[in-house]
Amino acid sequence: MPKKDYSRIALEEHKKLRGKISVSPKDAFDDKEKLAIYYTPGVAAVSSYIAEHPDEAPEYTWINNAVAVVSDGSSVLGLGNLGPHGALPVMEGKCMLFKHFAGIDAVPIVLNVHSADEIVAAVKAIAPSFGGINLEDIVAPICFEVEERLKQELSIPVFHDDQHGTAIVTLAGLINATALTGKSLRESRIVMSGVGAAGIAILKLIKRFAPAAAIVAVDSHGLIRQGRSGLNTTKQELLDEGAINGELAGNLADALVGSDIFIGVSQPGVLTADMIKSMNNDPIIFAMANPVPEIMPDVARAAGAAVVATGRSDFPNQINNALAFPGIFRGALDNRVRHITDEHKIAAAQAIASLVTSPTPNEVIPSIMDERLVKAVAGVIR
Amino acid sequence: MPKKDYSRIALEEHKKLRGKISVSPKDAFDDKEKLAIYYTPGVAAVSSYIAEHPDEAPEYTWINNAVAVVSDGSSVLGLGNLGPHGALPVMEGKCMLFKHFAGIDAVPIVLNVHSADEIVAAVKAIAPSFGGINLEDIVAPICFEVEERLKQELSIPVFHDDQHGTAIVTLAGLINATALTGKSLRESRIVMSGVGAAGIAILKLIKRFAPAAAIVAVDSHGLIRQGRSGLNTTKQELLDEGAINGELAGNLADALVGSDIFIGVSQPGVLTADMIKSMNNDPIIFAMANPVPEIMPDVARAAGAAVVATGRSDFPNQINNALAFPGIFRGALDNRVRHITDEHKIAAAQAIASLVTSPTPNEVIPSIMDERLVKAVAGVIR
Repeated sequence: MPKKDYSRIALEEHKKLRGKISVSPKDAFDDKEKLAIYYTPGVAAVSSYIAEHPDEAPEYTWINNAVAVVSDGSSVLGLGNLGPHGALPVMEGKCMLFKHFAGIDAVPIVLNVHSADEIVAAVKAIAPSFGGINLEDIVAPICFEVEERLKQELSIPVFHDDQHGTAIVTLAGLINATALTGKSLRESRIVMSGVGAAGIAILKLIKRFAPAAAIVAVDSHGLIRQGRSGLNTTKQELLDEGAINGELAGNLADALVGSDIFIGVSQPGVLTADMIKSMNNDPIIFAMANPVPEIMPDVARAAGAAVVATGRSDFPNQINNALAFPGIFRGALDNRVRHITDEHKIAAAQAIASLVTSPTPNEVIPSIMDERLVKAVAGVIR
Repeated sequence: MPKKDYSRIALEEHKKLRGKISVSPKDAFDDKEKLAIYYTPGVAAVSSYIAEHPDEAPEYTWINNAVAVVSDGSSVLGLGNLGPHGALPVMEGKCMLFKHFAGIDAVPIVLNVHSADEIVAAVKAIAPSFGGINLEDIVAPICFEVEERLKQELSIPVFHDDQHGTAIVTLAGLINATALTGKSLRESRIVMSGVGAAGIAILKLIKRFAPAAAIVAVDSHGLIRQGRSGLNTTKQELLDEGAINGELAGNLADALVGSDIFIGVSQPGVLTADMIKSMNNDPIIFAMANPVPEIMPDVARAAGAAVVATGRSDFPNQINNALAFPGIFRGALDNRVRHITDEHKIAAAQAIASLVTSPTPNEVIPSIMDERLVKAVAGVIR
């Protein structure tokens, strides 16, 4: 089946719209008196009241429903460092999703600064304008430090969606994919391809959910193992904690022999049909590189994959963060949850998985059009 | 005439709305394909294109129509330092005005930092998200340094509305008030009460428009004159440049004897009926302290004022920044104007004044409901 040329269509449609979101007043200035109520002199009483009762700011301003979608453009989709203006169309799209799925007023904030110190300073400076911070497309390992520090220093929820949104939805898909194939996560051999922000978050959440799972991980230098050169602090820690099984040497092909699950958040095309054929029966393939996956789904299925998931909306089983983040923020804002914990993330994954009552190879996760999603996820964020 | 209790009404209405603005997608996700166009995979082409053609970012993103309304809450209306959350209702109201009058998508950005260095750093960091920066309610003299540095360091228009919006609309009102009373600005004796951000901008713009105008200025310590104690750098500079006539000593009452025009951007109630009676014939009173003016209009009129203007929407002749800033930004965004110059400001004041063809004591400036305003002002910002 020929795929549409979404690149061309997207360029045309974006040029036509000239921006995908807009700001609207919630009431019309249909008489002059409304200016005296919403602006001077009336607004002075509201400002004074909030200054005296800061905890009530969400009752009188938009921060009960407003989220900043923050990126420095250093790692946009799978495309690398495109800078803040290059990131803006993605962030505007994210803001559309926030409103469409969860009714949340989200604003794209693309940053012209790129060190952890500067990003933290900028986000802290603007934080009173919003009720939550969604971090997006910030390169690893800077994104880890940024998120950790902001979580400690701000009193509103901070959520790096590339890490945790992806991890939640991947875990949801794996719960149903393993049920469908008669595997179990804790008895599976799992191969991670890509150990960036998303890969690490997926790995950690799986280990939290199924501590006995055996996970090996491959980066651009091959299998991650004790003593290998080129290990950064994060990877060394994952080895030391036992989160990564670091006994094997070799490359991706070596790692996949006799394994059950491939989880890719890496590069287009790194997975081949021959590698899938070397895996155990009914292999599960989550090939989530964006916009081009590690292997195309039809090739993977032909090579024997029992379930194939990708990050794309034009194939079945889209591991789409939009299954998680709208409900995560809806719940956090409505229930005034200040920190999204691992328990929240696992509960969200289970809530998402449970919406597919009878998983099939083409449906291990619900469609993002499933209207029960936001309520189900928001319900566990409390 | 009893005035409504706008404080009570405003508190009620703000609590009902819980935020005065919202964000909307410009197109609906009415089929799943739109996700592939506005988000992945399609958006990747748009992001890549912008990264390669940064000058075209306004053609593909909302920055052609998006403005940040930035405040640190250090000088909110006439109420002083209410902090960022205290400032938020005012900034949300401003965003309503931006959309209502000029169709501009404005976002309230309230800052948790208060030094010039930190404010400049935060605004520079987020600047790629917007097509213009409206500074608001930042205390003097920090606001001057912030605006000057941002104008130098950013390639998008930066406009401190408390200074320049007020100055433009005040000048527009004075043009018609002097015409009505047969006075001329260059032959008038003008008394400024209040030499903060707005006062200084008004003073400078009048001197630019009518260099021969004789202006004396009063701050909380009395008349500003050479050698007086408590002069900050800005006031000393205004004296040294001859912008302020620094020969008189005394207080506001002394200064007003034999003067033609009172311009107040200071404190409620500082102007009395007796002071107005000591002025020349047909005195012009612009009492713009917010929310309570330097003198109430009925008292001023009874004392002989020929024209009274205030900052309030519930009296005639409202010196409302909303007469200027929507058109200023509409013009700057549409015509890609990077710096709002003094020539732009004077042209804008003349454009606003010209909309009142026959000035009367109750109409020296157009109503903010005048639908010709934005087009008239935007037309001179090029």
